[in-house]
Amino acid sequence: MVKSLNNIRQEFPILDQIVNDEPLIYLDNAATTQKPQAVIDAIVDYYQTDNANVHRGVHTLAERATEQYEAARQKVQRFINADQSAEIIFTKGTTQSLNWVASHFGPQVVQAGDEILISYMEHHSNLVPWQQLAQQTGAKLVYIDLLPDGQLDLADAKAKIGPRTKIVSLTHASNVLGVVNPIQAIAQLVHQFGNYLVVDGAQAIPHMPVDVQDLDADFYAFSGHKMLGPTGIGVLYGKKTLLEQVTPVEYGGEMIDFVELQQSTFKELPWRLEGGTPNIEGAIALGAAIDYLNQIGMAQIQAHEQALVAKAIPALQTIDGLTIYGPQNAQDRTGVIAFNLDNLHPHDLATALDMEGVAVRAGHHCAQPLMKWLNVAATARASFYLYNTEADVDKLVQAIQAAKEFFQDGTL
Amino acid sequence: MVKSLNNIRQEFPILDQIVNDEPLIYLDNAATTQKPQAVIDAIVDYYQTDNANVHRGVHTLAERATEQYEAARQKVQRFINADQSAEIIFTKGTTQSLNWVASHFGPQVVQAGDEILISYMEHHSNLVPWQQLAQQTGAKLVYIDLLPDGQLDLADAKAKIGPRTKIVSLTHASNVLGVVNPIQAIAQLVHQFGNYLVVDGAQAIPHMPVDVQDLDADFYAFSGHKMLGPTGIGVLYGKKTLLEQVTPVEYGGEMIDFVELQQSTFKELPWRLEGGTPNIEGAIALGAAIDYLNQIGMAQIQAHEQALVAKAIPALQTIDGLTIYGPQNAQDRTGVIAFNLDNLHPHDLATALDMEGVAVRAGHHCAQPLMKWLNVAATARASFYLYNTEADVDKLVQAIQAAKEFFQDGTL
Repeated sequence: MVKSLNNIRQEFPILDQIVNDEPLIYLDNAATTQKPQAVIDAIVDYYQTDNANVHRGVHTLAERATEQYEAARQKVQRFINADQSAEIIFTKGTTQSLNWVASHFGPQVVQAGDEILISYMEHHSNLVPWQQLAQQTGAKLVYIDLLPDGQLDLADAKAKIGPRTKIVSLTHASNVLGVVNPIQAIAQLVHQFGNYLVVDGAQAIPHMPVDVQDLDADFYAFSGHKMLGPTGIGVLYGKKTLLEQVTPVEYGGEMIDFVELQQSTFKELPWRLEGGTPNIEGAIALGAAIDYLNQIGMAQIQAHEQALVAKAIPALQTIDGLTIYGPQNAQDRTGVIAFNLDNLHPHDLATALDMEGVAVRAGHHCAQPLMKWLNVAATARASFYLYNTEADVDKLVQAIQAAKEFFQDGTL
Repeated sequence: MVKSLNNIRQEFPILDQIVNDEPLIYLDNAATTQKPQAVIDAIVDYYQTDNANVHRGVHTLAERATEQYEAARQKVQRFINADQSAEIIFTKGTTQSLNWVASHFGPQVVQAGDEILISYMEHHSNLVPWQQLAQQTGAKLVYIDLLPDGQLDLADAKAKIGPRTKIVSLTHASNVLGVVNPIQAIAQLVHQFGNYLVVDGAQAIPHMPVDVQDLDADFYAFSGHKMLGPTGIGVLYGKKTLLEQVTPVEYGGEMIDFVELQQSTFKELPWRLEGGTPNIEGAIALGAAIDYLNQIGMAQIQAHEQALVAKAIPALQTIDGLTIYGPQNAQDRTGVIAFNLDNLHPHDLATALDMEGVAVRAGHHCAQPLMKWLNVAATARASFYLYNTEADVDKLVQAIQAAKEFFQDGTL
C-alpha cells in the first residue's frame, strides 16, 4: 500500500511556520531537506529508550543499539540494492565518502601519467579531491564536456575514456543544471578497460529509484540529510572487492582487531572503515528516513517532482529577463532549477524571495567551474521535494515577479 | 545559581525503564552517556523550527541554522576556555580528532629518527594512529611506563622526553584505570624542547573542569556523546598557529575558497578543516549539552562522581576474589572502575549483572596494550556519571555478590 503525497506537508512540522510575515515555502532541498515527524520521533525514541555504544557491550541497551545500527545498514543495502550489507559504510556524508575514495582508494590504482576523468558540472566535493589526487600522483585531471544545454556530452566521454582513464567520477544528478547523467552507459565504457566509476549520488538518491548493481557503479556516495535524514550521516557504497582495497581512514574503536605495541591488525568490512564510535543516532534515523521514503515509493516521489518541474519551467519561462540554466524541457530535469534575472544579483533576488517567505539558495552552489562554464558568477536555485506542491510553484513565480517589479520600480 | 543533582535522574527519560525485570542501573558511561530531555528537545526544536544548511544560504532558516551552529562553537570555546572560536573544529568524535592530528599534523613535524611518545594506558584511538605515523615516517613509537598502581610514571616521562620527542600524546584520564594524568607537568617538559603535546580528553572533559590554556595542551580531542551530547559530533581543539599547519582532511563544501579546473584555494580556520555539510544538529545539541553541564557546574559533577567512587571502592574491596585495577585510593580516581572476579570471565560477569538490570561493560576497552600490562585478557568496568546515585553503587555491589554466588553455587 503506497502512501499518498496529499497532505504530507503536515508530517513536516517545520514547514508550518511564518517567515517574514509569509507562510514558509521551502525550496532549498538540494542544500538540505526537512525531516518528517517520523524521523524526529526515531531520534527521540533512540535516546529515550535504547541509547548505548554499539558492538562492544554485552548489556541489554548495547545489544539493542547494535541491532538497530546494523538494521539501518541493511535498510540502506536494500534501498540501493547493494549485494551485501558489508558494502555499506557509514560516513559523515557525501563529501567524506568521495574524499575517502579519492584519498584511500585512488592511490592504489592511479599512477603518474594516468588520467582521472570528471565533468564540468561536478560539485566541489567531487572535484577538489580528484585535483588533490592528481597533484599527489602526477596523474592528469581531465574534464568531460557538456552539451550547450548542460547535458553531459556522451560522445566526448566516449572519446576521452580509454585505458589510461583509471577513475571516472561523475555526479548522478547535477545540483545546478538538474540533469541526470547516463551512469550505466559510462559504467560500460569505463569497465571495458577494467577501470573504476565513482558516482556522487547526493542529488539523485533522494529523488529517484537507484539500484547500484543495475547502474554498475563501483562506488556510490550520498548523504542522509538530503533524503529526510539527519546531518552527520552518509554512506559510501562500494563493490566489496574494491572496498577491500580502501586503506583504513581512521584508526581506533571497532575497526581494530589486535593491537601490539608496534603494530596492529584490522577487522573485516564494513567495520574496518568505521573507526571510533559511529554516528549511531544518525544511522538509525537514516534508516527511519528510508522507511518513510519506502512507504511513499521513490517512483511516486520522482513523478511528483517531475510534475512540479513541468509546471515551473514554462511558468518561469514567461518571466521576461529570466534565464533558466540547463535543459529547457521539463522531462530532461530533476527538481532543481537554477536561474537568474537580468540585472539583478542572485543574492538580492534570494533575499527578496525570502521576504516573501520563499527560501531559495543563491551563490555558486559549490560548483565554480560550472559557473565559469555557464559564464555567470552565481545563480539563484529553487529545488523541490516530496512535500512541495503546485501552490509552492505558483508562489515562487509570483514572488520572482514581485521581486522583479520591486527592483525595477522600487515598489513591492 | 547552581542546579542540584538531587532528582536529576528524572530528566533522563531512558533511565526510567525495566531491564530483565529489574530497574535499569546504567553504569557504562565511559562508553557513552545518556541524554537529558533538554538535549533531546534541542534536537527536536532544531528539526521542527530551524533546520537548513549552514553558511551558504541567504534565506531566514539558513541564517538561523548558521547562527546556532556558530553559537555552539562559541559554547565549546568558553567551556574549555580556548583563546578563540577558530580553535574549535567540529569533528565526528575523539577518534577522528586524534587521527587528524596524527595524519595531517604529524607528518609536518615528525621525521625518521624522531620519537613519538605515548603511554601504556592509551585507548587504541590514541595509539594506533601514532603507530601508523611512526611506520610512515620512520619515527620511533616509545611508551611511558606506568607505576605499579597504574599511575603514569612521571620520572620515566621526564627521562624519555627530549629534543627528539616531537609529539607526546596522552590521555587526560584513563578509560580503564580511572587515573588522571599530570597534563600540565608533561606540557612543560614537552615545550622545553619546542615540541607538541596532544591530549585525548574523551574521559576527562565530561567529568571535570578543563581549561586548555591552563593545561597548555597543543591539541585537545573529545566526543560529544560522552558528555550528554549526541553521537557523530566531537571536537578538535588546537592552538591556532598549530591548526594552521594541519593540512585539509576533506575537500568540498564550505572549506573551499576558489576552485579552478586544476587547482583550488581554501578558507581560513575553522572552516578550512570542516569539509562538506557539517553535523549541524550534532553541534547544536552538543551546545545544549554544554548549557546543561554548565547549569550544574563541572566542579559539582566531579565532586559527585568522587563521592560515588569513595563509596564504591571500599565496598568492592570487601568482595572476596574481586580485583580492582588502578589506584586503590578513591581520591586518585575518576568515576571509572575496572575489576575482575577470580575464576569468572568478565563477559559472564557483565551478563550476570545485566540480568540484575546493571549495565557495565566487559572486554579490553579498546586498550589491549594496557590489558597486557595488567596481565589480563579483559575486565569488567563500571563507570559513573552525574545521574548515578549511592543507591546505584549499592546495587552494583549487591549484583556482583549475587553473580559471584550464582557462579559458585549455581543459585541466584
